Amino acid sequence: MELIKKPTTGMKDILPEEEIIRDYVIDEIKKTYGRFGFSHIDTPCVEHIENLCSKQGGDNEKLIFKILKRGEKLNLESANNENDLVDSGLRYDLTVPLARYYSNNQSVLPQPFKALQMGNVWRADRPQKGRFRQFMQCDIDILGEASNLAEIELVLATTTLLGNVGFNGFKVHINDRKILKAMASYAGFDEADFDQVFILLDKMDKIGLDGVCEELADYNFDEKCIAKYRELFEGLSAQENKLEYVKEVLGEFIEDGAADNLLEIIDTVNASKGADCEIVFDPTLVRGMSYYTGTIFEIEMAELNCSVAGGGRYDKMIGKFTGNDTPACGFSIGFERIITILLERGFKVPGTEEKEVFLVEKGMSADRLGDGQ
Amino acid sequence: MELIKKPTTGMKDILPEEEIIRDYVIDEIKKTYGRFGFSHIDTPCVEHIENLCSKQGGDNEKLIFKILKRGEKLNLESANNENDLVDSGLRYDLTVPLARYYSNNQSVLPQPFKALQMGNVWRADRPQKGRFRQFMQCDIDILGEASNLAEIELVLATTTLLGNVGFNGFKVHINDRKILKAMASYAGFDEADFDQVFILLDKMDKIGLDGVCEELADYNFDEKCIAKYRELFEGLSAQENKLEYVKEVLGEFIEDGAADNLLEIIDTVNASKGADCEIVFDPTLVRGMSYYTGTIFEIEMAELNCSVAGGGRYDKMIGKFTGNDTPACGFSIGFERIITILLERGFKVPGTEEKEVFLVEKGMSADRLGDGQ
Repeated sequence: MELIKKPTTGMKDILPEEEIIRDYVIDEIKKTYGRFGFSHIDTPCVEHIENLCSKQGGDNEKLIFKILKRGEKLNLESANNENDLVDSGLRYDLTVPLARYYSNNQSVLPQPFKALQMGNVWRADRPQKGRFRQFMQCDIDILGEASNLAEIELVLATTTLLGNVGFNGFKVHINDRKILKAMASYAGFDEADFDQVFILLDKMDKIGLDGVCEELADYNFDEKCIAKYRELFEGLSAQENKLEYVKEVLGEFIEDGAADNLLEIIDTVNASKGADCEIVFDPTLVRGMSYYTGTIFEIEMAELNCSVAGGGRYDKMIGKFTGNDTPACGFSIGFERIITILLERGFKVPGTEEKEVFLVEKGMSADRLGDGQ
Repeated sequence: MELIKKPTTGMKDILPEEEIIRDYVIDEIKKTYGRFGFSHIDTPCVEHIENLCSKQGGDNEKLIFKILKRGEKLNLESANNENDLVDSGLRYDLTVPLARYYSNNQSVLPQPFKALQMGNVWRADRPQKGRFRQFMQCDIDILGEASNLAEIELVLATTTLLGNVGFNGFKVHINDRKILKAMASYAGFDEADFDQVFILLDKMDKIGLDGVCEELADYNFDEKCIAKYRELFEGLSAQENKLEYVKEVLGEFIEDGAADNLLEIIDTVNASKGADCEIVFDPTLVRGMSYYTGTIFEIEMAELNCSVAGGGRYDKMIGKFTGNDTPACGFSIGFERIITILLERGFKVPGTEEKEVFLVEKGMSADRLGDGQ
C-alpha cells in the first residue's frame, strides 16, 4: 500500500527557498527584539484542554485540534461526548500559554517581564488561499507594567523590526477599548449590545459609514442611537485633531485619562520611532478579541491594504491563572503574511554566506577523497 | 475558577536562560550544516495517522498523540474503536515526515537532496527525569545518494557540529546491518529470530558478553548457536583490525563489499575530520529502528557514557510513498541531551551581543521620553 504524499489538509511543507527567508526573518526578530530587551521563551505546543477552553480565545476555541486521551484514561464506552475523550489540545495562540507560563514561573522571572515568543499555532479553520491550519506566530508581551511605557516600547520594537526586514510607509492604528465604549455609550447603545455594535463597526474599512449604519439598522438598533453614532463619526472625520475632538465631545462618557494616554503614546512614538511609519488614532479600530481591556493597535501596510501586526492591553487574563490581576500588553506580527509578501516581492536575503563547495569527480573512490586537502 | 498553571504532563516551559543556549546551538546547527550544503526544510507537526501508523516507527507508534476528527467527521456513536475517532497525530520523529515530504516535492528538489530539519516531535512516553513528551529533534539526511559519500558527509558534518558547540573526545561507532546479520547467520541463528537476537545484543554495553549469552539462553536459543556467537565476539575483542577479522571469519556469510564499505568510510572520515574525535567499527552496535538497511552509526560521549547522536541508512522507506526505492541515509543529534549537558556545564554563549539599555527615571512622564535622544 502506498502512503499519503500530501500534507494533512490546510498544512504545508516548507521548501528550501521559503525556509531561507523564514530563517532570515526569524534572525532579525531575535536580534531586534533582543536589543529591546525581550527574552526569548517557549511553551509546549500541547496545552491543557481546560486552559484552551476557558473563554480567553473567542472564536478560536471552536477551532481547536483536540488530542485524544491515552491508555486507561480513554474509555470509549463511557464517553458521552467529545470532552470525555480529550485531555489536551494544540495551542491556537501564544497568549493563553504565556499567561499560564507567567503564572507558573513568575517567581524566577524579572519584573516587569518582557517576553518574545515564536512558535507554531494550530486552528482548524476552513482552508483557503494563504491561510494555513498550522502557522507561525511571533509575539512580544510586557507583563507587570501598568503604564503606557509598555505600549510605547511594543510599538517602537515592532515598527523597528518591520523597518529592519525592509518594510516602510506603514501605519500604526491605535485606539482604546475605553474610547470605543464611551462612543457607543454616548450614542445611547446598551452596554449589553456593545460587542455586536463593535462587530459591525469593525467593517468600516470595507463597507464605509453608510454600510455600518445600514447593518446596525438591520440589527434593529434604535434609530436615534444609530443617527447619533453616525454624527459622531462624521464629526470626527472632519477633524484635524481627532483625539481632542473625542475628548471634548464625549465629555464625562470617557474614562479619565484614556484620551491623554493615547496622545502620550502617539507623541512619544512619533518622537522616538526609528522606522519610516506613522502612528494615528483610529476610532474605528476594534480588534476582535474580547480579552482586551485598554489600548489596542494594528499595523496596516498601505500598499497592500492589509494588516501585518496587531495587539493590545489585556490586564485581566493573567489573574484568571494566579488570582491576582497583572497588567499585560502584547504585540503580534503576522509572520506568515510578512513571509508571503517577501516571497511575492522576490526578496533575496542580504549577504548570504558563501557555501564551501567540494567538487568530486564522479565515480572517484572514497579512499581518495581525503587527498589534496 | 483558577486555571491550570503547570504545563501538561511531561512537557516543559523553557525559561530565558535555557532559551539563550538553545538559540545559540540552533544558530551553530544552521551555520555548520549550511556550510556542508544541507538545505533547511520543515514539515507540519501534524501528520496523517495512516503515515504515522505504517510500521516505520517501531515502538514509537505506540506513543502517538492522536488528534480527534472534527465536525461531521467525528461520529461518537458509530465509533467502534480509537481509530474511528482520529484522522491525524503529532509526528513522533522527523524521518517519516521527511519521506512523505520528499515524495510530495521530489520534482522541485535537487538530486541528491541534502535536508536539514529542526523541529519538535512528541511521544507519550512514561515521564522520567530528563525525558520529555515534547522534544526537539535535529536531523540531516541525504536522499538519492547510494554510495558511501552520504555516510562520509553525514559523519563529517555531525562531528564538525559537535566540535563547534564545544564537545571533544567523542567516539563515532559504526556498523552495518549486513554485518550484524552475517554474524548471526554464521552463528546459526534463524533469520526469523534476528530481531530478538539483536535486541539482546544491544545490551552488550550494559550487561557484557556473559549477560547477553545468558539472556539468549533464557530465550531458549540453541546452545551451539550461542557458543559460536560468543566465540565470534571473543575472537573479535582480541583483534586489532576487527573489520579484517570479520571479513575473514564470516567469509561467504557477509554480503560482498559490506566490510570494505565500512573501511572506506572509517578511513576517509579519519583523513578528513575537523573535530577531535575517533571513528571505530563496533560489531555490537544495533540501533533500534527496523527501517535501517545498511550502515548504522552512533556517537558516544566517553566522559558521560551516553549517546548524543545516531543514524543510518534506510533505503526502503521512501519507496513506500513513491513506489520507487530511493537510497536514503540520515544522522540525528540528541538536541535536548546536548542542551542538558551544556546547562550542567554552566555553558555561557560566547560573545553575547550587548543590549541597549535605556534608563528611565521612575514616574517620568511619557511625553519626556523622547528628550535627550
